[in-house]
Amino acid sequence: MIGALLGVIGEHGALVGDIETRYVGRDHFLRDVTVSAYDQPHLDEVLKAIREETETEIQNVRDLVFERHAGGKIRVGRTTAADTPEDLRYIYTPGVARVCRAIEQDPALARQFTSMGHTVAIVSNGTRVLGLGDIGALASLPVMEGKAVLYDRFVGLSAVPLVIDEDDPEAFVDTVCRVAVGFGGIHLEDIRTPDCFWIEDELIRRLPQPVMHDDQHGTATVLLAAVLSALRHTDREGRRDLTCAQVGLGAAGLAIARLLMDAGFDVVGVDPGAEARERLEASGGRTAELHAAAEEADVLIATTGVIGLITPEMIRPGQVVLALSNPIPEISPEAAVEAGAAFAADGRSVNNALAFPGLFKAALDVGAPAITSAMKIAAAEAISALAPDQELVPSPFDPRVHERVIKAVSAAA
Amino acid sequence: MIGALLGVIGEHGALVGDIETRYVGRDHFLRDVTVSAYDQPHLDEVLKAIREETETEIQNVRDLVFERHAGGKIRVGRTTAADTPEDLRYIYTPGVARVCRAIEQDPALARQFTSMGHTVAIVSNGTRVLGLGDIGALASLPVMEGKAVLYDRFVGLSAVPLVIDEDDPEAFVDTVCRVAVGFGGIHLEDIRTPDCFWIEDELIRRLPQPVMHDDQHGTATVLLAAVLSALRHTDREGRRDLTCAQVGLGAAGLAIARLLMDAGFDVVGVDPGAEARERLEASGGRTAELHAAAEEADVLIATTGVIGLITPEMIRPGQVVLALSNPIPEISPEAAVEAGAAFAADGRSVNNALAFPGLFKAALDVGAPAITSAMKIAAAEAISALAPDQELVPSPFDPRVHERVIKAVSAAA
Repeated sequence: MIGALLGVIGEHGALVGDIETRYVGRDHFLRDVTVSAYDQPHLDEVLKAIREETETEIQNVRDLVFERHAGGKIRVGRTTAADTPEDLRYIYTPGVARVCRAIEQDPALARQFTSMGHTVAIVSNGTRVLGLGDIGALASLPVMEGKAVLYDRFVGLSAVPLVIDEDDPEAFVDTVCRVAVGFGGIHLEDIRTPDCFWIEDELIRRLPQPVMHDDQHGTATVLLAAVLSALRHTDREGRRDLTCAQVGLGAAGLAIARLLMDAGFDVVGVDPGAEARERLEASGGRTAELHAAAEEADVLIATTGVIGLITPEMIRPGQVVLALSNPIPEISPEAAVEAGAAFAADGRSVNNALAFPGLFKAALDVGAPAITSAMKIAAAEAISALAPDQELVPSPFDPRVHERVIKAVSAAA
Repeated sequence: MIGALLGVIGEHGALVGDIETRYVGRDHFLRDVTVSAYDQPHLDEVLKAIREETETEIQNVRDLVFERHAGGKIRVGRTTAADTPEDLRYIYTPGVARVCRAIEQDPALARQFTSMGHTVAIVSNGTRVLGLGDIGALASLPVMEGKAVLYDRFVGLSAVPLVIDEDDPEAFVDTVCRVAVGFGGIHLEDIRTPDCFWIEDELIRRLPQPVMHDDQHGTATVLLAAVLSALRHTDREGRRDLTCAQVGLGAAGLAIARLLMDAGFDVVGVDPGAEARERLEASGGRTAELHAAAEEADVLIATTGVIGLITPEMIRPGQVVLALSNPIPEISPEAAVEAGAAFAADGRSVNNALAFPGLFKAALDVGAPAITSAMKIAAAEAISALAPDQELVPSPFDPRVHERVIKAVSAAA
């Protein structure tokens, strides 16, 4: 019976996850079967097939994603006792007044005697959320809470989602500047291109604390780690006399190109947009057409979102090929290797959660005013060093990863 | 030895708190002695006296207030597991995208599937913090964290301190409106008069969620509870055919006067400032000179900060006198009773922490768009009902208080 059920689920293109037996009766079993479907119509199709093609009775359909989001994913709690009137005299009035006075006289004390020293604001206007586009500030909140969960889980930082209902870049920047004073760092997230470039530059210029747009620099840091690992796997560890082609100069692509340059690589950027190319050229990079860039590249990286953009004919023997677009890459790793690539991977393992928690934790710990290229490169080296054989990066759940990133980034800062 | 030590501390005007024995030796004891002094010069004087007048050796002087504030008082933590890659697929990508889409299509779902349904922003610009005046946004942060501790402790709400480095009321309001979308409620705190009036009115007008300035309405709610208790203690429970004189029409005083009117009392306001009087008159209240108002008042309330403003000659026999200024009231309860008052108290027991946690918790629980007078009156009645004999209000640590406030306010909403 269960075999027939799972067979039908699989035949209709859905994935079977955990199966838990809830009840064993004389003539039936009650089981929770976790099924991943693409979307609601796909799930409806699978449910219909189960009803028509098996003898299974469906008692209840639960949505685990929504169940896991019920009530939100984070909360703010106290780290000090508040159980007696005496406690309140220390942590609230009248005691707190002395702490306020001390901070008024020496603002640097706020890092020590308030939570700002371990708190990052995760700021977004929701103008480019995941692959969903401009869904607005409120609808982006579940993503920001997800990032806050990761900050807590991986490095113990407090992260406060701050979604700003303002698309105009200048008003957005003014707003962030006014609320930034109580936060040790500003993590920018899911802001559309090209606004994200000016917004980040302007906030870095105007604010004293570290500011980082994760879609740019978190991604670039993990990608640099992936490149370093791929070079190690192809016996070119430590070499910087190589050319990297970065195909696609959007938010992530531009940051990847710049960080590869800062790490010592020769970089050539590719993008159909003149503005995108000018941005790379303005920071000293060079650009080329796709075929010419692929031809000269030792490492070919693509972040374009264009399925099949890279054809087997473009692959140079011995090349490292990282075609990162999700869920379907510019060229499949199998096709790239068949065409002669020495190493090829898609974007599945490239996870920002490897980089941003440790980058901000280190920056806050040492009181760094910015997250520099040197810090990102140090993070990338630490991440790459823990990648298992033939993998580009370790799992973010590897307990050593964040600790090592923090140590390396702190030293670089 | 210990007796001599404590005697000297007391003779020099400091208060002795807990004493803990750390070590018992053959010829000496090591003890932690907690001492409350007014300020650093006073503490220095006490320490000098201990050294000169006793045989006690001071090994170490610790500052418990700063110790309790080290590292801040709150943190943001996850409420969902994030221990496996599978967890991340539910709470982060790709699962989270479906939750984002659902909220984009129906914004009301954000209350259910994000933390905003249990999250309040505690917003201040630091322009009037405690008795310290305009110390700025950053220096006010320890107070906002203190309030967040109380929200967590008393009703389990998540409260996010949001200090805004902007004194201009219009820019302040614009900023709050832009960041408000991710919060279930907006708690305003420590904003100077008269800015606080316009700011609160404007935010209530522009925002869909409840907005409340605690220095006004939290205080007014607890004060109404105190008045109800005082009437009960003087056998006038339930009577509304009484005149209350509100002396001082600042942020708290104006709100007290208005709430007493909404609760059915006849109210006369007193303030030397024409603008302050006009504000009360604009909301239908009447004003008078101090002597005339005191003469006709059944209940005489003062929130002026002026020591000794109320003289024994002003007290009418049988009057209830609540002289609330801290730390020294307009007239001492003893002097008021001696002059004929039926009941008198100072502001020591009037603690906002009785009201604001339950008011916001109830408002968020039932999805109320505003915190109305009816809700504040319900809270005041619930608080007053739990006041012990001859006390005006219960302790905020009374485990019944917040539960009853939430129930009463929810019903009123």
